[in-house]
Amino acid sequence: MKDLNITDSLMTKEDVTTLILLSKKKLGLSWAEIAAKIDMSAVFTHSACMGMNAFPPEKAAALTEALGLPDEATAVLAESPTKIWEQTVPTDPCMYRFYEIVGVYAPTLKALIHEEFGDGIMSAIDFEMSVARVKHDKGDRVKIEMSGKYLAYNAW
Amino acid sequence: MKDLNITDSLMTKEDVTTLILLSKKKLGLSWAEIAAKIDMSAVFTHSACMGMNAFPPEKAAALTEALGLPDEATAVLAESPTKIWEQTVPTDPCMYRFYEIVGVYAPTLKALIHEEFGDGIMSAIDFEMSVARVKHDKGDRVKIEMSGKYLAYNAW
Amino acid sequence: MKDLNITDSLMTKEDVTTLILLSKKKLGLSWAEIAAKIDMSAVFTHSACMGMNAFPPEKAAALTEALGLPDEATAVLAESPTKIWEQTVPTDPCMYRFYEIVGVYAPTLKALIHEEFGDGIMSAIDFEMSVARVKHDKGDRVKIEMSGKYLAYNAW
Amino acid sequence: MKDLNITDSLMTKEDVTTLILLSKKKLGLSWAEIAAKIDMSAVFTHSACMGMNAFPPEKAAALTEALGLPDEATAVLAESPTKIWEQTVPTDPCMYRFYEIVGVYAPTLKALIHEEFGDGIMSAIDFEMSVARVKHDKGDRVKIEMSGKYLAYNAW
Amino acid sequence: MKDLNITDSLMTKEDVTTLILLSKKKLGLSWAEIAAKIDMSAVFTHSACMGMNAFPPEKAAALTEALGLPDEATAVLAESPTKIWEQTVPTDPCMYRFYEIVGVYAPTLKALIHEEFGDGIMSAIDFEMSVARVKHDKGDRVKIEMSGKYLAYNAW
Amino acid sequence: MKDLNITDSLMTKEDVTTLILLSKKKLGLSWAEIAAKIDMSAVFTHSACMGMNAFPPEKAAALTEALGLPDEATAVLAESPTKIWEQTVPTDPCMYRFYEIVGVYAPTLKALIHEEFGDGIMSAIDFEMSVARVKHDKGDRVKIEMSGKYLAYNAW
Amino acid sequence: MKDLNITDSLMTKEDVTTLILLSKKKLGLSWAEIAAKIDMSAVFTHSACMGMNAFPPEKAAALTEALGLPDEATAVLAESPTKIWEQTVPTDPCMYRFYEIVGVYAPTLKALIHEEFGDGIMSAIDFEMSVARVKHDKGDRVKIEMSGKYLAYNAW
Amino acid sequence: MKDLNITDSLMTKEDVTTLILLSKKKLGLSWAEIAAKIDMSAVFTHSACMGMNAFPPEKAAALTEALGLPDEATAVLAESPTKIWEQTVPTDPCMYRFYEIVGVYAPTLKALIHEEFGDGIMSAIDFEMSVARVKHDKGDRVKIEMSGKYLAYNAW
Amino acid sequence: MKDLNITDSLMTKEDVTTLILLSKKKLGLSWAEIAAKIDMSAVFTHSACMGMNAFPPEKAAALTEALGLPDEATAVLAESPTKIWEQTVPTDPCMYRFYEIVGVYAPTLKALIHEEFGDGIMSAIDFEMSVARVKHDKGDRVKIEMSGKYLAYNAW
Amino acid sequence: MKDLNITDSLMTKEDVTTLILLSKKKLGLSWAEIAAKIDMSAVFTHSACMGMNAFPPEKAAALTEALGLPDEATAVLAESPTKIWEQTVPTDPCMYRFYEIVGVYAPTLKALIHEEFGDGIMSAIDFEMSVARVKHDKGDRVKIEMSGKYLAYNAW
Repeated sequence: MKDLNITDSLMTKEDVTTLILLSKKKLGLSWAEIAAKIDMSAVFTHSACMGMNAFPPEKAAALTEALGLPDEATAVLAESPTKIWEQTVPTDPCMYRFYEIVGVYAPTLKALIHEEFGDGIMSAIDFEMSVARVKHDKGDRVKIEMSGKYLAYNAW
Repeated sequence: MKDLNITDSLMTKEDVTTLILLSKKKLGLSWAEIAAKIDMSAVFTHSACMGMNAFPPEKAAALTEALGLPDEATAVLAESPTKIWEQTVPTDPCMYRFYEIVGVYAPTLKALIHEEFGDGIMSAIDFEMSVARVKHDKGDRVKIEMSGKYLAYNAW
Repeated sequence: MKDLNITDSLMTKEDVTTLILLSKKKLGLSWAEIAAKIDMSAVFTHSACMGMNAFPPEKAAALTEALGLPDEATAVLAESPTKIWEQTVPTDPCMYRFYEIVGVYAPTLKALIHEEFGDGIMSAIDFEMSVARVKHDKGDRVKIEMSGKYLAYNAW
Repeated sequence: MKDLNITDSLMTKEDVTTLILLSKKKLGLSWAEIAAKIDMSAVFTHSACMGMNAFPPEKAAALTEALGLPDEATAVLAESPTKIWEQTVPTDPCMYRFYEIVGVYAPTLKALIHEEFGDGIMSAIDFEMSVARVKHDKGDRVKIEMSGKYLAYNAW
Repeated sequence: MKDLNITDSLMTKEDVTTLILLSKKKLGLSWAEIAAKIDMSAVFTHSACMGMNAFPPEKAAALTEALGLPDEATAVLAESPTKIWEQTVPTDPCMYRFYEIVGVYAPTLKALIHEEFGDGIMSAIDFEMSVARVKHDKGDRVKIEMSGKYLAYNAW
Repeated sequence: MKDLNITDSLMTKEDVTTLILLSKKKLGLSWAEIAAKIDMSAVFTHSACMGMNAFPPEKAAALTEALGLPDEATAVLAESPTKIWEQTVPTDPCMYRFYEIVGVYAPTLKALIHEEFGDGIMSAIDFEMSVARVKHDKGDRVKIEMSGKYLAYNAW
Repeated sequence: MKDLNITDSLMTKEDVTTLILLSKKKLGLSWAEIAAKIDMSAVFTHSACMGMNAFPPEKAAALTEALGLPDEATAVLAESPTKIWEQTVPTDPCMYRFYEIVGVYAPTLKALIHEEFGDGIMSAIDFEMSVARVKHDKGDRVKIEMSGKYLAYNAW
Repeated sequence: MKDLNITDSLMTKEDVTTLILLSKKKLGLSWAEIAAKIDMSAVFTHSACMGMNAFPPEKAAALTEALGLPDEATAVLAESPTKIWEQTVPTDPCMYRFYEIVGVYAPTLKALIHEEFGDGIMSAIDFEMSVARVKHDKGDRVKIEMSGKYLAYNAW
Repeated sequence: MKDLNITDSLMTKEDVTTLILLSKKKLGLSWAEIAAKIDMSAVFTHSACMGMNAFPPEKAAALTEALGLPDEATAVLAESPTKIWEQTVPTDPCMYRFYEIVGVYAPTLKALIHEEFGDGIMSAIDFEMSVARVKHDKGDRVKIEMSGKYLAYNAW
Repeated sequence: MKDLNITDSLMTKEDVTTLILLSKKKLGLSWAEIAAKIDMSAVFTHSACMGMNAFPPEKAAALTEALGLPDEATAVLAESPTKIWEQTVPTDPCMYRFYEIVGVYAPTLKALIHEEFGDGIMSAIDFEMSVARVKHDKGDRVKIEMSGKYLAYNAW
């Protein structure tokens, strides 16, 4: 059934990611530069280029133009993704350290959120995040900021 | 062997956590207030009270005094902990959302750190974190900031 | 350390659940009847009695009175719980069937939500649920209704 | 053995799903519109198109015609599927929330079913489900309804 | 909280199982003999005594009398159990062989059920089972019979 | 190394299963009819066609002829298989229900076998099984019978 | 329910194992010496003392006498055990090496058994095993011998 | 990158295993006959042919000649393998029974080795094994012998 | 059975570890100082005190005397331990980093050992290890040395 | 989408590893010899060739020239890798023994590091390692040295 006589095909988010990486390499752009071209953050831009978020339609179109992607990429970039991420803790040291931080501090974050806001959570949907370099005498530091809407539990 | 004729006993970090929770309840203090009493952050204070970090000796002593803990608690609070945290993703929604965020964005954080700093990681040891409430018209937001030293891989 | 000379103690949600089950048995009440006494739904009432949700303070007080629980139960019933549930699919047939339904239909629910609402999710926090009996000629049916707020992903 | 000289081939449910997705895209139809064309619910239609349920033969034929699928698709759509779904909790937030709901409330559903019906379960076989949008001032809501036949345990 | 001043207590199915085993030993009865006393099958009787099934109320009462159990055991024996069984394949050879049989033949059973009955399943709820010894020249054989109602999938 | 200049090739049990399914479809035969053609049971025939059992040589030859398979299929059908089955409980409802039955009743089967036969097991090697339809007023039933030789443990 | 007014109690295999270890220590006996006293092999004797096999009744009685165990130990030693062993590979190096051997050589053992005997297995029930020291110039060797009855698969 | 313009290629142990199986089939040899041709044991020969052991160079050359393998196979057969075996217990009954034996008896083997030799292990590296058929009235038996050097733990 | 009338009891390695920790605290000794008292390395001393290695009898006696342990501790310290360690990667950062190192470099160590020594392994039984502080301008370093006997695979 | 009309392609670290292995074989070089050509250690060289570390740019260029790799390999060799290693303990005996060592001794290393340095860890990032052969009368030994910077936990 691999050879059904079909003229259309389904371009996937994975295909578009490959096209973006090739274009990024050919144009010699950094993620920060790509993000600047479409006036979005580097975090969201990278994540959506990896297929883990959906671009708003006009941003999808802007990216398609900026990177010279085929037209049909626009629709794919704007599709709702299925977010599949590592449930087992990843082994790459750079990624692992973030799991270590969350593992150690999640109960603390929960306790402080409950103390300050009440019974509820920080949304991971109405959410944003940034990464920045902070100069420091004893070695520069990575600074990460997250902001998510507080959502209170419903009781009925 | 449960009844060896021993007069000393080993006070554990878990014991001290219980004592702290009882004292906190009796004194009616919040974590922020306890942290203020020993001039440390709420995040570190809660985490070390839970037995997931070691207090510097003078802070351990200050906490023992502030909460009226038994003297031997000071040494226990200053001991290096064995940090055991949930490797399987926790089910509590407030904690789960942080794993979801790290799961979705860890590859993005890695890519942006490598682009900005080179081949290395953000330290989870030389590290600090804060939580704050940010007022917002459509509902207040939880703001979390992390800062960790950049560590470059050694090549030899 | 089990015998620290402490006069206060920490009543847990698990303790209160035991007290509720004893009182329920002595008073011969059903969950529906208990829920009616505090004017809440049976689903939320049972769940919060099991320690999986927090009662609003006035409902906690009402329950404490209705079931003749000790006074300190009120505060415990109103505390934010840590929701720990079965990540491995449970083996009890009555519970298993719900996992089977979600396992089979989750991709369908996602597709239809995205088609109708856009890129986002149904909240499990701003959420409610009911169970009811529906008479039927070929055997009565169990009817379950869920309602959760639609939350759209943020792009930044 | 990939090249055995065989002229027949086995069309799989996966093949038909691909054909449906292509046809749906070409015709610009939503799942609700496809379901309407064959006079079935959107939930069952999507699920059976994904290969997780079997269409009644006449519905399979109607779908084949409505979407212009090859004739042999009819038989495939009517075959009993092998339902393989995620036993580990999925990471996609939209799907995850349903597992969270079932994880938190399955013991509650079991308790209320036993209280109302006796020792038994809600069938996941003689079962149906719907999804709908409910307008709401503070943001529209997703409403999900399930109905399954009550089955009592046999004792012998 | 271990010492709440409560005079009632909750007898569990596990407690009753222990009482049954003690009584069975004292009276020198086999499971077949116990089953005969209450006019039920040995399979169901053993399973319900182990806490994996609920006895019909009159059978629970009969068993309580036959084995000289305390009165409150009757209600416990008639309660709906939470069936928790080994999801990982058990290591005991006698139990393991049944998993091996089901592992090897489940796809075959599914295929033959679908061929004979259509798209559906054999119920594990409206179900019964027996074990018997069959004499044989080359060594006696264990004969197991299962019977479950056929349930057809609903389409809607 | 995919293109070593080799003229022979290894036909696998998986290849033969595919050939059987194609032939079965072309000839319009049920498993029961195929089994009848080689005078074996439907259970064993299906299982061995799926590659989970080895046919006796003369039966392999009979099947090859009955279904018009290539000659070399005979030897493959008679080879000892490596039986690989699902150790994690399968999700398909029809297969799952058998695991549920074994999960709930394996300790019961063990207890009754030990009571009747002594310390030993029911063999899964010297074993046979059948499936049948039993007419019933309230809905037909699936009847499954298993028979395995009792094997006593050796003591030395 | 821990304090039910019961005068009988259930001695378990675990209890008897503890009694045996205490007696063995007091009498200063090796496993080989204990085995010799009841005229059985050291392997079977140790295994049954650990609760992983059932002694024949007369051997159970002999052991009870030889080690001065309480009378009721005899019946317990003769009971069918539930064999629970490590499904995850154990970490103790002496035990691990046996899993490593079986892991590496199980496919080889299967191939050679099939070549020599036909489609079947070596029984682990009608089975025996010994351990011995073999003198060797470059360091003594551990010699292990196993013998199990060949069981041929049934075809029906 | 699948099509890099490279004229050399890497023959793997897996490739050689395939070549051996084809040659074995064409020549109609058993494993015992192949082992005899190179004057090694059947166990080691099969294992090394499967890629789980390295042949001594002269044996690799002898095998290459005996089976008519391409010259480069000699070097591959003599390479150190990466031994990857099933950590989860395999489901094939013939292989499973060996895990069952090791699972049940590993603690016994450890106890008897420690009693006879002291604190140490049986080596799985300086190790050998054989399989043989033993005639028996009640059915022939499979006899397996293992011998491994005793290694004492170092203390420093 | 917790209260069998037995006058002897079994002191376990876990008991002795507790006694050592209490004595170490009372005497104010470091592990290095304890090791020096019995003229062994700190690594082996700590590990054996934790119950993960067996002390040679004379060292066990020396330790018992040096720390004022009860006499029967000597025999326990000299017993062969069952080494149970974390198969899942531990979460404590100090321990985790060693798993990370082994995870990243194990294939490299294997390749270099094979290149230098041939087909074999580094023994973890005839093995020793040390930890030391190395002064360094940019921050002191931890130096770890391991030495294990090379063991060549047997071919037979 | 496999056949998008793209002229660029993405060379991966895996591709370069294959090229290196082919070149190493053709040139007949050992890892030690390759390392010498670029004046780096054998451990780092092998690891970075396997794609588990990034070469400094000038070393990447030197390696590309020394082994006659295509020019674009230089950039790939200098890219930050995603380090994916075995979280489940590997089965290969040579690699397994290192996990066994770390499993047994990680708590010891943690205790001795804390005793000597304070609350912190040995870095796995600012880290180096070597392997060497040490002559010995009773059989040569493998010597492994690791050195990592001590990192103290931050308190804030």
